[in-house]
Amino acid sequence: MHHIDLHLEKDITEANTRIADGNRELLKRHGVKAFDLLGAIGSGKTALIEKIVPLLRARGLAAGAIAGDVYGDDDFQRIRALGIPVVNVNTGKECHLDAHLVEHALHDLPLDDIDLLFIENVGNMVCPTDFALGAEKRIVVVSSTEGDDVVNKHPMIFRSSHLGVINKVDLAPLVGADLDRMERDMHRYHPGMPVFRTNLKTGEGVTPLLDALLR
Amino acid sequence: MHHIDLHLEKDITEANTRIADGNRELLKRHGVKAFDLLGAIGSGKTALIEKIVPLLRARGLAAGAIAGDVYGDDDFQRIRALGIPVVNVNTGKECHLDAHLVEHALHDLPLDDIDLLFIENVGNMVCPTDFALGAEKRIVVVSSTEGDDVVNKHPMIFRSSHLGVINKVDLAPLVGADLDRMERDMHRYHPGMPVFRTNLKTGEGVTPLLDALLR
Repeated sequence: MHHIDLHLEKDITEANTRIADGNRELLKRHGVKAFDLLGAIGSGKTALIEKIVPLLRARGLAAGAIAGDVYGDDDFQRIRALGIPVVNVNTGKECHLDAHLVEHALHDLPLDDIDLLFIENVGNMVCPTDFALGAEKRIVVVSSTEGDDVVNKHPMIFRSSHLGVINKVDLAPLVGADLDRMERDMHRYHPGMPVFRTNLKTGEGVTPLLDALLR
Repeated sequence: MHHIDLHLEKDITEANTRIADGNRELLKRHGVKAFDLLGAIGSGKTALIEKIVPLLRARGLAAGAIAGDVYGDDDFQRIRALGIPVVNVNTGKECHLDAHLVEHALHDLPLDDIDLLFIENVGNMVCPTDFALGAEKRIVVVSSTEGDDVVNKHPMIFRSSHLGVINKVDLAPLVGADLDRMERDMHRYHPGMPVFRTNLKTGEGVTPLLDALLR
């Protein structure tokens, strides 16, 4: 059982990578810079989009989004309220987006009108790791309320990401979370990765993150 | 690709169910009442064990645990500090425990000395749903900090659970979470499921939950 599983997994990952390469080409052709947003449920992925879109607009840049969830359109509705183009993708049972789902979503977006595209993955820190989508960079969001051992429990997602966000810094004292431990663990798994501390309810810490995205 | 995937998924689920049935028989033979603990990372699954074990002890009952995580032993160490038998299970890359992993762990536990066994699944609300482990009941834990749309996004896990816990009730006002919406969504997906509101840092709300477990 395990043997077959591994072989099939390899085939699926390779097929996914080919499609992701196609997505990357398509995005490049249309001048879209895309970010894969990863993190647990409630970590603040949608809130990050909510806070970044107005700042982008102020700089004359247009955003777009793909909202990935197992079920429902809660995130999609929040993003749509920002007045940017967004496509809702429900995976049904799958715990991650894949390049094929993103390919379909890209066809439904006005790519020529988008400068930055946020692809919000399904909320968990395990499954999305192995599935490239065609984005330029990966942003991983954790929050203090997930416990300060959350980074240590998930090495792979930090190794494969380019930017780290530690959100809900205001709640850290209330849940007894050590933000320094979280940042230290991120750097243990991914030395040198830029890490940003945010409160995405107020917008605290978002500007430095945005500057890094645009660099 | 999708077609092969579905067939293999069915085979794997069936093989898992057979092993889960074996686990259930084994647990029954040793008089162990087992609970599968599900929920996102940081929802409070380990904290629930921490608060319940002393209450069980006071009632003359002995607990045991299996700590499931992708990587690391953070939860395992917290549970071991309670002085109960516990086995650490790292899934490596998998986002859920399966019956085969639990079968191995059961062989390493002194089942005759355990009245209640808590099987703490890997922290996410998607993958564990389809994999029976042999437990008598499933407890699903969500916390207010995951956002009050967290239940709506994950119908399947609530349909397959027997008891619901809404944790971190003290933080609800701070994150603007509507606890009534969360409970309503649980009952929409699983009418009649008992739902308990807790603050597992202080232990608030644990006794009614324990009473329900022992019923």
